[in-house]
Amino acid sequence: MNKDRMQKQIDFLLEIDKEKNIFRQTHLSNHGRRENDAEHAWHMAVAAYLFREYANEEIDIGRVMIMCLLHDVVEIDAGDTYAYDEEGKKTQREREERAADRIFGLLPEDQKMEFRGIFEEFEADETSEAKFAHAMDNFQPLLLNNSNGGGDWIEHDVCIDQVMGRQKHTAEGSQAVFDFTKEILERNVREGHIRPSEKNQTEGR
Amino acid sequence: MNKDRMQKQIDFLLEIDKEKNIFRQTHLSNHGRRENDAEHAWHMAVAAYLFREYANEEIDIGRVMIMCLLHDVVEIDAGDTYAYDEEGKKTQREREERAADRIFGLLPEDQKMEFRGIFEEFEADETSEAKFAHAMDNFQPLLLNNSNGGGDWIEHDVCIDQVMGRQKHTAEGSQAVFDFTKEILERNVREGHIRPSEKNQTEGR
Repeated sequence: MNKDRMQKQIDFLLEIDKEKNIFRQTHLSNHGRRENDAEHAWHMAVAAYLFREYANEEIDIGRVMIMCLLHDVVEIDAGDTYAYDEEGKKTQREREERAADRIFGLLPEDQKMEFRGIFEEFEADETSEAKFAHAMDNFQPLLLNNSNGGGDWIEHDVCIDQVMGRQKHTAEGSQAVFDFTKEILERNVREGHIRPSEKNQTEGR
Repeated sequence: MNKDRMQKQIDFLLEIDKEKNIFRQTHLSNHGRRENDAEHAWHMAVAAYLFREYANEEIDIGRVMIMCLLHDVVEIDAGDTYAYDEEGKKTQREREERAADRIFGLLPEDQKMEFRGIFEEFEADETSEAKFAHAMDNFQPLLLNNSNGGGDWIEHDVCIDQVMGRQKHTAEGSQAVFDFTKEILERNVREGHIRPSEKNQTEGR
């Protein structure tokens, strides 16, 4: 055992413990409290395994899972940027890159490169694994929010154009999950939990 | 897309959301609040990936990760049984089997069998994957507790014989992680956070 190496790994493990205190806008089912990043990552990774049959392309599910588990580590420094926070999103990339430098920099050199690579692969959203992980990143909060009568959409007064702008990317990872997503969204528009399209004024709220 | 199948998968995903409200005895680092099962599972799965080089035997890391992510699902019904709660442990197996029947029973038949198999493999603790997942299940709370000056051991007034009774199994999954564990425990005994052995009265507190 190389003690210096293990100590660096432990420093990283203790650092990411802080993800349990980064709270998101999404609420737990049964109208619970807000969800934190660690819980979200756990739920996404289980969803990925459970739904792997719906991936558009062949995927390495182990890689998808570790991608899900690690994708929000940067929020320890950068904070959670809400999906529809247009101001916050302008600086998100820069804040998250700085965070990645610091946090993955705690690891031994080889694992720093490896974990950074997993994070960058997720961000680039080009491989089948990254696309499927993104589909889960979109679907998991939608599932919770839908189970709560769309409370998070109502609270943030979001419009279907915004929600669809994000959720449509789910189709790149999983057409089946997107088809289900679309049904959920259309129902939530009909029920007045999401504002109807501003592009199509014929659709009533 | 088979809607009935996907609905069953979604019922399961929403059911396991409750793991985020099952609180353990372990406290988060920096003297934080108690940790919940979903956070523990997430942290364990990342630790497994990070520490995979220390597994005694060859492991399928994807299988270890899903085992880590799912191993506490049964606590939604059965509750968390503290590692040193000798009364609770007498009924733990029966409570957890009933919970597994109900919760995995929400899934489509093939996935019910698969997920139940993953859970039973963890419980049986015979494969290299299960042994390594158990090593992580032991190590993750120890790491947090050690970072908090052994507060959880002090609170429960535990003796090194109890702690070692559990932690010694870590060596079956990872000798390297066990060696590190042993050092941590010995230091915590010396510092008075864990009561010294009752078998060996020559060791002072």
